[in-house]
Amino acid sequence: MIKQRLLAPGPVEVPPAVLEALARPVVHHRSPAFVELFLAVRRRLAEVMLVPGEEVLVVTGSGTAGFEASLLAAVPAGGRVLSLHAGKFGERWAAMARRFGLRVVELSAPWGSTFDPDRVRDELRRSGPFDAITTTHSETSTGVLHDVEAIASVAREAAPDALLLVDAVTSLAAAELRPRAWGLDVVVSGSQKGLMVPPGLAFAYLSERAWQRSDALASEGALIGSYYLDLRKERARQREGQTAATPAVSLVAGLDVALRLLLEEGVDAVWRRREALNEALLASGEAVGLARYAVRPSPAVAALTTPNGIAAPDVIRRLAAVGIRIGAGQDEAKPRLLRPSVLGWADRFDVVTLAAALEDALRDLGRDVAFGAATAAALRSLAS
Amino acid sequence: MIKQRLLAPGPVEVPPAVLEALARPVVHHRSPAFVELFLAVRRRLAEVMLVPGEEVLVVTGSGTAGFEASLLAAVPAGGRVLSLHAGKFGERWAAMARRFGLRVVELSAPWGSTFDPDRVRDELRRSGPFDAITTTHSETSTGVLHDVEAIASVAREAAPDALLLVDAVTSLAAAELRPRAWGLDVVVSGSQKGLMVPPGLAFAYLSERAWQRSDALASEGALIGSYYLDLRKERARQREGQTAATPAVSLVAGLDVALRLLLEEGVDAVWRRREALNEALLASGEAVGLARYAVRPSPAVAALTTPNGIAAPDVIRRLAAVGIRIGAGQDEAKPRLLRPSVLGWADRFDVVTLAAALEDALRDLGRDVAFGAATAAALRSLAS
Repeated sequence: MIKQRLLAPGPVEVPPAVLEALARPVVHHRSPAFVELFLAVRRRLAEVMLVPGEEVLVVTGSGTAGFEASLLAAVPAGGRVLSLHAGKFGERWAAMARRFGLRVVELSAPWGSTFDPDRVRDELRRSGPFDAITTTHSETSTGVLHDVEAIASVAREAAPDALLLVDAVTSLAAAELRPRAWGLDVVVSGSQKGLMVPPGLAFAYLSERAWQRSDALASEGALIGSYYLDLRKERARQREGQTAATPAVSLVAGLDVALRLLLEEGVDAVWRRREALNEALLASGEAVGLARYAVRPSPAVAALTTPNGIAAPDVIRRLAAVGIRIGAGQDEAKPRLLRPSVLGWADRFDVVTLAAALEDALRDLGRDVAFGAATAAALRSLAS
Repeated sequence: MIKQRLLAPGPVEVPPAVLEALARPVVHHRSPAFVELFLAVRRRLAEVMLVPGEEVLVVTGSGTAGFEASLLAAVPAGGRVLSLHAGKFGERWAAMARRFGLRVVELSAPWGSTFDPDRVRDELRRSGPFDAITTTHSETSTGVLHDVEAIASVAREAAPDALLLVDAVTSLAAAELRPRAWGLDVVVSGSQKGLMVPPGLAFAYLSERAWQRSDALASEGALIGSYYLDLRKERARQREGQTAATPAVSLVAGLDVALRLLLEEGVDAVWRRREALNEALLASGEAVGLARYAVRPSPAVAALTTPNGIAAPDVIRRLAAVGIRIGAGQDEAKPRLLRPSVLGWADRFDVVTLAAALEDALRDLGRDVAFGAATAAALRSLAS
């Protein structure tokens, strides 16, 4: 019997108190007890998103469902979208927009890199006007944290009418994210990442400006729309502590516990903790010959490439054999990329564990690695 | 402290073994352990649906998400739909079809009644051709079990090219349902009803004929489509034990346990048990002056109307005060309808409990009810 450890950038390990909440008897979604719980959860979600007092909507579905619902609420049929992408999830949002018949201009950057705000500005000026701009914040496939603050700033200047839709699936409660201060119009996230809940819930924040746009488009009959993924209907219901369709009540109960844990620690403290842990993970990898993949690392995932002659899938298999599940590289990054993560219910000792397992795996694969090289680097990084 | 009992037609009480499975550590959805679990769950789902060996797809979302995904996979843009409705959920599917710009002909019957197959045949001949027919099987808002077998039979005769889409959200594992023998094209259900799992998963079965139609429409570019609710993409992924977006892994783990319990008992035995329990619930209500609302009762819910002078919300409040949550009437049925249900993790003693609580509530509200009138009727019904 092997002890299992989930150290991937989502789904993540979940605190025991959250698991306990999932196992509570099911509560009817129209009962006063659930209404009270749901309103409290939505209030706390807004606090964790740093939009206290505003409404964050909960969608039963994966993060992709949340992004789709947001796109359909904010962008008119046939609208023009500038899609920034430098990884799998950015590409997904471009594909989604095309799927709905939107006119998509793509501005890509190589995997592992980030967007140059000047290029974004130029593209907005050259190809505009746009109804919306889509971007990832933490691009989970590459471990890059895009500078959404800078992108928002050039967007406001060069395309003041375009709404900025941000995939914050792995950045929420992991990286600094200030929707109001940065002027983000839509922020989407999911339960199974920094919020430390199993998958099945997505979250969508729309700014006042985004809602005004949505209302105007709806009154013109200009939205594409969906029946299930209808944030406008959800807004009306969720204000009353209800949902349009039956929500995943058990996951909501777990979310309530997780949000309390995060708010108790403080959102800023959570950001700092996760950044320090992730930096230590990167340092431990570098100490044994792995290289940083992301030019601007996201605290949600330590993207590391293997040295010449070492295939990433071989490392991943060796980690799996000792019960450790990390993220693999996706698509073009599959042969050389490792994506361990301490985004979930994880602490410094999980970093040390991962460092030790990486050492073992690389030694197994014939690398000359001194005992304790990775763990020492992790501990040194954590102490600084 | 009041002991809580959830006796509504979904969400339902969940077996302790299912709750325990929900509280297990989260498993990564790309891990071999999850792939194996997911393939087994899909195999068992097909057995419970009596389509062994065929593929039932799992959607992370509510039952509404499952119906929407099915509609978008099977009906062309601008297609013609005959929508049969005699209650809130039937109306929902008509509204959904209209929302997507389909041309909807509605054939309604009064709440509490069922569809006359001859009227369906006439409407199909008069207003056809149709691309699809939508109907509920167990209409949860009225407690009616529609005769889907008869509807399928007239549909095949009068509209051989129309696909029949069936909402089996509360009928799966509750009422006799034979997709193959009856020739149903699409069957949709959800986790939080007869399958005794918390809400958050929907299921969609498409017949070979429905998939052929879907494939033909897709090759013509005739489908409306969605990015998230894309059963065609899911079919390809789920065959491999994968999903296109991250699934609600904890609910899948719970579902696995629930399906084993149901298959152990046997689907036929489950149907008979639930029908007997529901019939006893109806008998207990009749014994204290309530009247059956459904002309053809679904085993999923005991729809009962209050006598003159007794408001249903008053009864519901009294039950809630002793910890018992039943379903309320919806829309036009709100003032007089009660919808208790033993669809979930419930047995004969839950029926007796409900009977006793109904007695108490009606006595409280001034009805002259002999002690034990409802419980005796329940026990008598169960013994017969």
